[in-house]
Amino acid sequence: MNRDCPEEFLGIANLLADASGAAIRPYFRSGVIIEDKPDESPVTVADKYAEQEIRQRLQKYCPDHGVVGEEFGAQDAGRSHVWVIDPIDGTRSFICGVPTFTTLIALLREGEPILGVIDQPVSGERWLGARGHGTTLNSKRVTTRAAVALDQAAMYTTTPDMYEEIDAPAYNRLRSAVHATRFGLDGYAGGLLASGLIDLHVEGAMQPWDYMALVPVIENAGGIMTDWQGRGLTLDTGRGLTIGASCPELHEAALFVLSC
Amino acid sequence: MNRDCPEEFLGIANLLADASGAAIRPYFRSGVIIEDKPDESPVTVADKYAEQEIRQRLQKYCPDHGVVGEEFGAQDAGRSHVWVIDPIDGTRSFICGVPTFTTLIALLREGEPILGVIDQPVSGERWLGARGHGTTLNSKRVTTRAAVALDQAAMYTTTPDMYEEIDAPAYNRLRSAVHATRFGLDGYAGGLLASGLIDLHVEGAMQPWDYMALVPVIENAGGIMTDWQGRGLTLDTGRGLTIGASCPELHEAALFVLSC
Repeated sequence: MNRDCPEEFLGIANLLADASGAAIRPYFRSGVIIEDKPDESPVTVADKYAEQEIRQRLQKYCPDHGVVGEEFGAQDAGRSHVWVIDPIDGTRSFICGVPTFTTLIALLREGEPILGVIDQPVSGERWLGARGHGTTLNSKRVTTRAAVALDQAAMYTTTPDMYEEIDAPAYNRLRSAVHATRFGLDGYAGGLLASGLIDLHVEGAMQPWDYMALVPVIENAGGIMTDWQGRGLTLDTGRGLTIGASCPELHEAALFVLSC
Repeated sequence: MNRDCPEEFLGIANLLADASGAAIRPYFRSGVIIEDKPDESPVTVADKYAEQEIRQRLQKYCPDHGVVGEEFGAQDAGRSHVWVIDPIDGTRSFICGVPTFTTLIALLREGEPILGVIDQPVSGERWLGARGHGTTLNSKRVTTRAAVALDQAAMYTTTPDMYEEIDAPAYNRLRSAVHATRFGLDGYAGGLLASGLIDLHVEGAMQPWDYMALVPVIENAGGIMTDWQGRGLTLDTGRGLTIGASCPELHEAALFVLSC
């Protein structure tokens, strides 16, 4: 059996990202109204509207598939194919007018992510990775960087504050071991990793809609993305500790430092 | 005597930013070669080439003015008019392919910054602020946000690691006092502040070419930018502690927390 991602799903993913981007752009730097959710993360009208646009299209094009979205929860999540979506990943960046927030769209088959989109609708950058199809940035193939030693690696993390107390020491060990750590970017960093521009993307407290789309984008570009124990990422988040690396060697070296 | 910035200097600043952007764009995401300077900050061919392009034009258009640049140092810095330039502010972002690095260009008259440009040559965003001319983003007037209480303020800082040990406690008090802190962005955050998208931009270990251009951009949009003691910024950096705020009230509240 061919385990590649069927081509039709790439077309649907592009349609979803087009619709989401069209929904979001008018709200960018427009003085959007911000609500704080119970977990204190902010949400805007743009988040909700974009997710509705995506869900409406999924109902039309993939009525047999399930959906898990950040804003409107899970629907038929037990089905063989499930879309996992975050209409605006990096809502704080979006609110502050920083054009590095993204729309994240993943397709899971039997729990495994086989397709992922990282879409920046202001700059018009779209990374799409799918099993059997490689990873592209705006339709041009991209690949991760060749192996570098850990002490030469460039790492991105959204914020050093994102780790639970129990995980902070491991993260700080890794920060000390790499060449340079930069902060910010959320899921956009997954695109940079796939494009060979950074070497590591390490996060904590992630939800499935934060990481699922990144896995196919990174892995079909030659990288690897797992949890901090090296296990494949599933809908069960644990403490939401994720690591994307440009190649297996660097991934292994980083996991070793995290586990020390 | 009219203390406004003469209009001709706005035209020259635009020419300089155009030339710098044209020099930089071909190197973006092109696998630039990176050197580490003695202070371990990276520099690329693009940094040097862009600064040369700017200096050549200054020699032509403003032969009586001095120049202070990040890559090629000071020349005639004692003259009444001195340009202070950073060809690529946020070189690490540039290297990692993040389109939030900027070219910073300031004009000082008797030591006081009367004109500033924050230019992002990939997205095509250019903030220009000059005394008597307000601040514009791509020629449209922008203004800072109306006053918010400190506990509602959105703050940007490039990295929490940038503070000397003696300054870190003050910074951490401020972080605890604001609504949310985000990391990354370097001088780009000054543009967001001028556009009313964030409320505070607080940095440490800055050099004159990192902050001089931000002062006119922020202040001619309605904000205020000083050192942590509330003094106007000069070529003498001290520990390079800067704070930009959307309005005098918020600036005062933040300074109070920094000084506690």
